[in-house]
Formats: sequence, C-alpha cells, structure tokens
Amino acid sequence: MREAYHGELDEIRDGLVELANLVGSSMGLATTALLDADLGLAESVIATGEKLDDLQRDLENRAVAVLARQQPVARDLRVVVTSLRMSADLERCGVLAQHVAKLARMRYPARPVPRDLRRTVLEMGQLAQRLMAQAAEVVVTEDVDAALQLEKDDDRMDELHRVIFQHLMDDRWQHGVETAVDVTLVGRYYERFADHAVSMAQRVVYLVTGELTPDMPT
Amino acid sequence: MREAYHGELDEIRDGLVELANLVGSSMGLATTALLDADLGLAESVIATGEKLDDLQRDLENRAVAVLARQQPVARDLRVVVTSLRMSADLERCGVLAQHVAKLARMRYPARPVPRDLRRTVLEMGQLAQRLMAQAAEVVVTEDVDAALQLEKDDDRMDELHRVIFQHLMDDRWQHGVETAVDVTLVGRYYERFADHAVSMAQRVVYLVTGELTPDMPT
Repeated sequence: MREAYHGELDEIRDGLVELANLVGSSMGLATTALLDADLGLAESVIATGEKLDDLQRDLENRAVAVLARQQPVARDLRVVVTSLRMSADLERCGVLAQHVAKLARMRYPARPVPRDLRRTVLEMGQLAQRLMAQAAEVVVTEDVDAALQLEKDDDRMDELHRVIFQHLMDDRWQHGVETAVDVTLVGRYYERFADHAVSMAQRVVYLVTGELTPDMPT
Repeated sequence: MREAYHGELDEIRDGLVELANLVGSSMGLATTALLDADLGLAESVIATGEKLDDLQRDLENRAVAVLARQQPVARDLRVVVTSLRMSADLERCGVLAQHVAKLARMRYPARPVPRDLRRTVLEMGQLAQRLMAQAAEVVVTEDVDAALQLEKDDDRMDELHRVIFQHLMDDRWQHGVETAVDVTLVGRYYERFADHAVSMAQRVVYLVTGELTPDMPT
C-alpha cells in the first residue's frame, strides 16, 4: 500500500516536470515566432495550449485524488499541496507563452520587437526557458542550493526588464506608441514567467526546510 | 468533533471573505491615489501589503492544517482545495493593488493617467472592486447564477481595456511613450485583478456543480 501511494506521488512529480518542460519549450518557441515574425511557429505554439491545459488539469485531479484516497499527513501532505501550487504556476506560464505567440500572430507580418531590442528580448526568452528548466530540475532533486541559485539567476531577468524600460523612456525612442505597448507587455510576460519559476523553486525550499523565503516574487 | 471541523471550514471561508474585501478596498484606494496623485493614500495602501500577506498566509496554514488533522473527503475536501486556490487568487490581487499604488507613488506629483482616460480608469477601478465584492458574496452564498453573472459583468472590464488600447493606438495620442507604458500596465493590472475575481466565482461553480466552466480567464 505504502509503495503504491509513493508511486502516485512520483507520478505527480513526473507530471510537474513534463509540464514545466513543455511550458518552457513553448516560451522558447513563442520567442522565436515573435522575433522572426514566424506565423506557422506562432500557430503551432497556440495549438499546444489545449494539450497544456489537459496535462495541468490531469495533474490537479491526480493530486486531489491522492488527498482523497490516501489522506497523506506531514511531509507527504506538504508534497501534494506544493504540487497543487506548482501546477497553478505552470498553468499561468503556459498562458504567458500563449500571449507571446498570439502577439506574434496579431502583428504578423510585422515584427513587434524593434531591432535594437531584439537581443534583449531574445535573452529574456532564453533565460525564461532556462529558469523553467532549472525549476523542473529542483522539483526532482530538491536541491536547496540550486533553488537559491535560481533566485539569483532571476536577477538577470530584472536587469533585462530594466533595459527595456530604459529604451522605452529614452527620448530617442522612435518606434511609436503601438510598439511601446507591445514591448511593455512582452517584457511583463517574461518577467512574470520567470517569477513563477522562482516561486516553484521557493516552494521546494519550503518543502525541504519548512522555511518560507522572505521575498516571494511579485 | 464534526461540529468543530465544520467550524474550521467556516473560519476559512470567513477568512477568504475578509481578505477579498480588504483586497477590493486596496484596489479602490489605489485607484484614487493614482487618479488624484495622492501620495499619502498611495503610501497607506502600500503599508497594508504586509497585513494582506499575513492574512493570506494564515488562511493557507489553516487550510493545510484542516487537511492534515481532519483528512476531509468528498465535498469537504473540494472546499479546502478550492480555498487554497482562492487564497492564491487573492494574494495576486493584493499584489496588483500594490502595483497601482506604487505607480502612483513613483510618478508623484505627476498623474500618470491622462485626462481623457481618467473616466475609463476610474470605471476600471470601481468595477474591479465591485467584481471582488461579488466574488466574496458568491463564496458565502454559493449562488451559481450570481457566479455566472459575475462572468458577464467582467465583459465590461474587457470593453474598458479595449477603450484604453484604442486610445493608445490612436494616431492622435499626445501623451508620450512613458504615459503609454504606464497606461498599458495599469490596464493589465485591472484586467488581471478582474480575472482573479472571475476565477474565484468559477471555482465556486465547480464546487457546487462539479463542472468546470470551459473558459477559465487568461
């Protein structure tokens, strides 16, 4: 009995990792679609949205089923509750990747990101995907140091976000208001995506140490 | 025993309602601070952030404690899991109200919202607060019709959000890029706030009917 039950917890964890990887890939592909005005790629990212929803719902249902059938306590209970929260984080990340892909589609054939911000947005997209891969790893390894490192790596996202704002607020901005609005929203999507990855890592820290990290991302 | 346990569920529900009301008030006050460039009011909203965090954490701890001690099943289990999700919704809403207040503080003594969008932003702020009050009511009454009505009322938020974009994309926009960025973000804060209120109502529908509504807000 105990073995079957821990098998279920393992399956939930595997589901989280699978979803995290898919969501990370979606954000990476959406970034390429945005930067290259690649309509086909944007459409294919948008098309995976439903699959992500199904996976996420399945994961939640499995977590609730474990609560109902196994009535876990102590650490096992915390594992399940944490999984529910991570699953919600991943749901939002999937939606954020969709937002990036939908912007690419909406502006097609134009490229919403001006040339002088291309490198910054590319780095944001890659960093978002990398932070999510790290978060997935932390879910498996429960390595507290790696989780804290992820928080530090997220500082770079904040820097990149500031770079975008500096461009926007510069008097020499020549790309008009529509592009300013697009870039503002895109910057926020990446930042929120990264926040969710950090939040997942922090939940693992809480699971392992029982301590809340003082600054949950906003 | 059973009575004490249901008392705990009632307390969790009361906590959700209290938090929803505080978060709604915060968004209302933050809106006034933003529109009137009222620094004192902005500061006082920002100062309540910690209280909201404490309440939210307390609520979560109580929900997890019920899971651990009472091992609820069936509907009671769904009530607790739903409470955890709503608590996360409310946490985000509190952060969004803080974002509005912090923008007011950052731009003080300037007013980031141009005069021709003042009425729209005022309506967004009021609607956000009203939707949250409705969500709190639905949590208490579990009235499915009221929950579905809330979803319809949220359509107005989408309309107002479109009004903002129309202004931003209009060639006659004369308020510069910084204001465009501010207004873009503010619009998104209200829209996300309202989405969380809708999401709370949908969770109540799920609790009562066992049916997921097809379109969770994005």
